[in-house]
Amino acid sequence: MNEKISRFLAESEPETPCLVIDLDVIRDNFLALREALPLARIFYAVKANPATPILALLRDLGACFDAASIFEIRDCMALGIGADRLSFGSTIKKRRHIAEAYEQGVRLFAFDSAAELDKLALAAPGARVFCRIFMEGAGADWPLSKKFGCDVEMARDLLIDAAGRGLVPYGVSFHVGSQQRDLGQWDVACARTALIFTALRARGIELKMVNIGGGFPARYRQEIPGATDYGHAIMAAVTRHFGNNLPEIIAEPGRGIAGDAGVIQTEVVLISKKSYGDQRRWVYLDIGKFGGLAETMDEAIKYRLRTPHDGGPEGPVVLAGPTCDEVDVLYDKANYHLPLALAVGDKVEILSAGAYTTTYCSVGFNGYPPLKEHYI
Amino acid sequence: MNEKISRFLAESEPETPCLVIDLDVIRDNFLALREALPLARIFYAVKANPATPILALLRDLGACFDAASIFEIRDCMALGIGADRLSFGSTIKKRRHIAEAYEQGVRLFAFDSAAELDKLALAAPGARVFCRIFMEGAGADWPLSKKFGCDVEMARDLLIDAAGRGLVPYGVSFHVGSQQRDLGQWDVACARTALIFTALRARGIELKMVNIGGGFPARYRQEIPGATDYGHAIMAAVTRHFGNNLPEIIAEPGRGIAGDAGVIQTEVVLISKKSYGDQRRWVYLDIGKFGGLAETMDEAIKYRLRTPHDGGPEGPVVLAGPTCDEVDVLYDKANYHLPLALAVGDKVEILSAGAYTTTYCSVGFNGYPPLKEHYI
Repeated sequence: MNEKISRFLAESEPETPCLVIDLDVIRDNFLALREALPLARIFYAVKANPATPILALLRDLGACFDAASIFEIRDCMALGIGADRLSFGSTIKKRRHIAEAYEQGVRLFAFDSAAELDKLALAAPGARVFCRIFMEGAGADWPLSKKFGCDVEMARDLLIDAAGRGLVPYGVSFHVGSQQRDLGQWDVACARTALIFTALRARGIELKMVNIGGGFPARYRQEIPGATDYGHAIMAAVTRHFGNNLPEIIAEPGRGIAGDAGVIQTEVVLISKKSYGDQRRWVYLDIGKFGGLAETMDEAIKYRLRTPHDGGPEGPVVLAGPTCDEVDVLYDKANYHLPLALAVGDKVEILSAGAYTTTYCSVGFNGYPPLKEHYI
Repeated sequence: MNEKISRFLAESEPETPCLVIDLDVIRDNFLALREALPLARIFYAVKANPATPILALLRDLGACFDAASIFEIRDCMALGIGADRLSFGSTIKKRRHIAEAYEQGVRLFAFDSAAELDKLALAAPGARVFCRIFMEGAGADWPLSKKFGCDVEMARDLLIDAAGRGLVPYGVSFHVGSQQRDLGQWDVACARTALIFTALRARGIELKMVNIGGGFPARYRQEIPGATDYGHAIMAAVTRHFGNNLPEIIAEPGRGIAGDAGVIQTEVVLISKKSYGDQRRWVYLDIGKFGGLAETMDEAIKYRLRTPHDGGPEGPVVLAGPTCDEVDVLYDKANYHLPLALAVGDKVEILSAGAYTTTYCSVGFNGYPPLKEHYI
């Protein structure tokens, strides 16, 4: 576990559950991605962790920002981040929110449908727009629905349409799926993107930008490739499909920057068996699905855990949260094992929990207050 | 749709998304359940909707309250609800929270494990404790995991143990599963409960109370039995298994009181297709899984919807929320149909949304603020 965070926990003994973020790791992750993708502009996905200390740090390091809502745009601008460093990356925006962003100077917008293009043409005349294409998300830990993106044929037509409606058809975006470990997925996506570039060129429209999205992983139970591996794979894919005529590249890491920077400390509230024949212990923590660990839904994200008894003999457990809700179970099928010596009152650390935790908390389900946060 | 709420929405045009609760319906539902279960004491499950106007109304009507955490106990007591009207119904409590409740005068506690009994014996000497037994939840819309309850054999031993440790073994609780429509489930549960009463009587211990839990439904897409049907079924079950020696009965409705009292108004943000061949429209609302509709997880709770175009021709839709999260899809498999005339900007009402919505909201996922609430 991160030494700086260990020291903070030992010295401050903060109330649990809490998230502790090491800002040095945020910095290191950002710089590593920038080094691995020297030709790309990095737009931090604010939604991963919008805490002010993180946004301010990345602002000072020269990052750009991908906003999922007008609320995130307001937050960024309140921190002095210029509109030219913002992308309104949601494909599902109210027209009045587009108008507000446009008034504030934002000129880069995502879309993936005709109806969204209508809104953009009316509320953001002259803005640069990029169309998100659908990807299947093979190889990703976090499942991709068909919620975002359209198919290549529709994307082509919509971008042509955008040009005719006073918008600047600027490029194509995709998302290969969160926590993507199959580096080949970027190649598939770049191939599709290049098809659209070629089709528009035939119509006299020069697209300029490829938005390679996020998908950069944090380290959960499985090993992951490093930033340089991603950089090589992505640059190889772009070069293969665009040759010498390289487009502008945008990347939108969120988890890849904030995930490994944070540790959630939690307390064991109860350990029990439900019948004399039970083979597994139930271990109940003071944080659960509704306290910040929403990504354990369907046991998709499998966090690494640390206990005071690591190294001793272990046994199988079901891990659950503290609320009176049946679905507030973290891991039942994922085959977690914890030390037999684990006891009520012990502290358990959840590693790589810096992304998609604090904002996922409920406002007060079962009365439990939101996750406390410490940025060090 | 509820007339009072319709009028409020028409006259006030509140910002969406918002929940509007008709307090008259809360009152009616409470009184109907009390009438249907005249021998039971009604403990409102605060977690269903802990809004102050609801708690204050039920306080004035003489209700008792089932608290899922120390935070809910504090909220109740701050409203002047006496400790004798509170049950600490969570089976997963920190020892210091048990101690705090006990200090405040709470004397009724749930448990379902040896470790929890240890904490109670130390922190709440002399308190009345009831053991929750496991139920399978057949017939319920919201799945039951094995998170709560122990088996009958263990419950018997734990209650005997409680007596030996300075606690008052007071009774047995169960939960037949949320949104339970199979009235026979209470009979199964009462049969198991009676077994435990008999076993303890043989040891000279007289249990006094049966806590029949919640499970009383709200009206979602499927029709539900009325309060009197529940009352008859439950009283028949208790009478069948306890004969003339009727125990004290406690019921813990939450959804059954607050669910049908509330309507969420939302706005259509986007309607789209993802390819030319798409058979279904995607309809994106300004509320989703992380804005209060967490119970759409696995499409468990299927809300009824109202649109301005009801009655006109309909077509199949996928319903999704506004966030940049792939899993923020409300209904994909549940076969929802909405009017073909539905347009971006239309208001859509989500009925029977008064329970398990406001507190499930995220604090700000993707920057979206929590659900606004109006109590009228």
